[in-house]
Amino acid sequence: MTVITIPSINGQRLERSLMELSQIGQLAQGGVCRLAFSAEDLEARKLVSVWMEAAGMTVHVDAVGNLIGRYPGRRDDLAPLATGSHIDTVAVGGRYDGTLGVLAGIEVVRTLKEQNLRLDHPLEVIVFSDEENTVIGCQGMAGKVNPNPELYKRRDGTDIQTCLKRVGGDWDKLAIARRSKSDLAAFVELHVEQGGVLEGAGVDIGVVTGIVGQYRFLVTVTGTANHAGTTPMDSRQDALVAASQVVLAVNHLATSTPGEQVATVGMLKVFPNATNTVPGKVELSIDLRDLDGENLRGLIGQLERELTRIATITRTEILLTQTLEVLPTLAHPEIQQAIEEACRQWNASYVHLPSRAGHDAQEIGRFTDMGMIFVPSRGGISHAENEFTSPEECALGANILLYTFLKLDQLPR
Amino acid sequence: MTVITIPSINGQRLERSLMELSQIGQLAQGGVCRLAFSAEDLEARKLVSVWMEAAGMTVHVDAVGNLIGRYPGRRDDLAPLATGSHIDTVAVGGRYDGTLGVLAGIEVVRTLKEQNLRLDHPLEVIVFSDEENTVIGCQGMAGKVNPNPELYKRRDGTDIQTCLKRVGGDWDKLAIARRSKSDLAAFVELHVEQGGVLEGAGVDIGVVTGIVGQYRFLVTVTGTANHAGTTPMDSRQDALVAASQVVLAVNHLATSTPGEQVATVGMLKVFPNATNTVPGKVELSIDLRDLDGENLRGLIGQLERELTRIATITRTEILLTQTLEVLPTLAHPEIQQAIEEACRQWNASYVHLPSRAGHDAQEIGRFTDMGMIFVPSRGGISHAENEFTSPEECALGANILLYTFLKLDQLPR
Repeated sequence: MTVITIPSINGQRLERSLMELSQIGQLAQGGVCRLAFSAEDLEARKLVSVWMEAAGMTVHVDAVGNLIGRYPGRRDDLAPLATGSHIDTVAVGGRYDGTLGVLAGIEVVRTLKEQNLRLDHPLEVIVFSDEENTVIGCQGMAGKVNPNPELYKRRDGTDIQTCLKRVGGDWDKLAIARRSKSDLAAFVELHVEQGGVLEGAGVDIGVVTGIVGQYRFLVTVTGTANHAGTTPMDSRQDALVAASQVVLAVNHLATSTPGEQVATVGMLKVFPNATNTVPGKVELSIDLRDLDGENLRGLIGQLERELTRIATITRTEILLTQTLEVLPTLAHPEIQQAIEEACRQWNASYVHLPSRAGHDAQEIGRFTDMGMIFVPSRGGISHAENEFTSPEECALGANILLYTFLKLDQLPR
Repeated sequence: MTVITIPSINGQRLERSLMELSQIGQLAQGGVCRLAFSAEDLEARKLVSVWMEAAGMTVHVDAVGNLIGRYPGRRDDLAPLATGSHIDTVAVGGRYDGTLGVLAGIEVVRTLKEQNLRLDHPLEVIVFSDEENTVIGCQGMAGKVNPNPELYKRRDGTDIQTCLKRVGGDWDKLAIARRSKSDLAAFVELHVEQGGVLEGAGVDIGVVTGIVGQYRFLVTVTGTANHAGTTPMDSRQDALVAASQVVLAVNHLATSTPGEQVATVGMLKVFPNATNTVPGKVELSIDLRDLDGENLRGLIGQLERELTRIATITRTEILLTQTLEVLPTLAHPEIQQAIEEACRQWNASYVHLPSRAGHDAQEIGRFTDMGMIFVPSRGGISHAENEFTSPEECALGANILLYTFLKLDQLPR
């Protein structure tokens, strides 16, 4: 047995907080619904504020609605270190996605406070606004909010100005929310993996190497709709035959070249979509992700050449429209090392892996040093009622987070 | 110039009838809507009955609602020859599909009557019920109606019993509608091609060799829905990747083997159909048609082997369910010859071709000798407002029909 000589968080207290927060927005049929800016989100923000203050933090809300708790450091001349995540959920979410990162941050501060400890740096715990939809919170901190408020409108029609006002933000003061490395020295986010790599490998902790970049495209294939009985095979311009070649080309793009890229056609619609009509038009989506930005650009070039080839041989028109571009963000090597050391300290096994899902840390990593810690997700499941990470796994993640900050606090930054 | 010594139909009168009938159900936005058993269908049946009686025919309606006009022959011991088609349309139909066959039949009888001519055989002109949907009219005459009335229910919920009553039929007397070769000696249907073969070849008349058989299948591909970002390529069971291989295999089936078969995937639905989710399920339709029943069965065998192969390599489950089986019907060689002779008589160019669309003649051909005459469709278009066959082409078709009957009347049958 290794004797742990460093402070340790209170796993039971963390678990109680996770369960208490999950009561807010709990659905009768199972799962949690706490959409950003909803009454449930407001109630959860209030509870989290109370917990932050009880842990010795001062609390404020920035212009994009991020709820920020600050635990003072020993040296006021140092920019704060920060952790955090989000407490909003998808329409039917689980208890851990986002929430664990926020509550583990608070638990870290609770632990410091009850042991009368302070870091040299101030330590912030941040609840980012609307991670599950517009990511306006982390975007605002990175100064990347689009000036068109229409893009941030809720599905129920509520405008973003109203939403921000509800939580104490202010759309007209977006610029003030922006931060830089000089006032946020480093950011570490703890999150459930939302995938099956750690569980599959039987490993405790994922040291995230970076968050993958993501491109999305809409592809429109135009052929000629025609009678499925009377149109000879050699007279057809079948949009679905062309689209099927596109689906296979996208799959081949990701599987035939070395690298960890993933490529998916998740949405495909056929027009007119009738049994006895040769398809005249198909719309489909392409989602392409990789940590390596150079590789992503190369894959897009290959994709474009493939689409041209397919259009020619199928005598169809294929239009490629980019709908999303999120550049990859790499985790800072020093933060990865600090996490590794924390794992060794706690006898925790670990692997390095990229995050293939987006996180608040992705935007924050654009202006300051960033790192992420993953804990296992049972069955790789998330965004569902049965999302699960055990209390022991949550506690270990929080301890790794604590030790990572103890370590980072000692490094010049 | 060949001097035509045979009676000739009145092309202007035929054109006037076509235009008059097309007024019934004419849509403000263009096109004709005369759904079977609707008020418009009833009005059209009434007008056609009046025309039949004026042409010297006795008129009755059989149990499945077929409207039958009979022009007496010189010999009452002979079974009638018959022609006809349908006057119902799809929701937005044209002026020629079906209608031409009925009105050309009436025009043939008008011509015989005004020249005081009779055939040896009685000559029937038949308006078949509901060709565009359930084909209950021709099915009933062939004794092939399914005893389950639910299968014949209208989209608006009206049951078939009510529909048949409206037009003078009687669901409870289905069996009486059935006919055999002994009381229907031969059937010849004139129809617009609904395809572009004749126009493309610059040919006046199509001598139909038969009506293709048609198989329809529903294919269900089951994989596993998963996160498009966090699921590595080698862990996926992507139902759309498998379905795309099915689409290409179906296309290959029809294009890579000799023969005139056509194969189409016209309908394809993806579940859950979201950009960021690896598809978990796909449903698609297969429509397979050919005149050669042996070839069709061979293709289905090949298809089954391909689906098994695709399921294995994609680690998905693929289920094939047959939803339609219509056997091919061959046109009688003697009737094809009579049509060819009529073409030579009228200096009309002709080609032999299969009908790749279904027609009333398909069911009638199951119990008696059948033939079909095609006239060109401009641009191959049908089931649309701009369906068009010129008055000259319609008149030539009607003359070919008349001469075909003059010829058939002389052959022992």
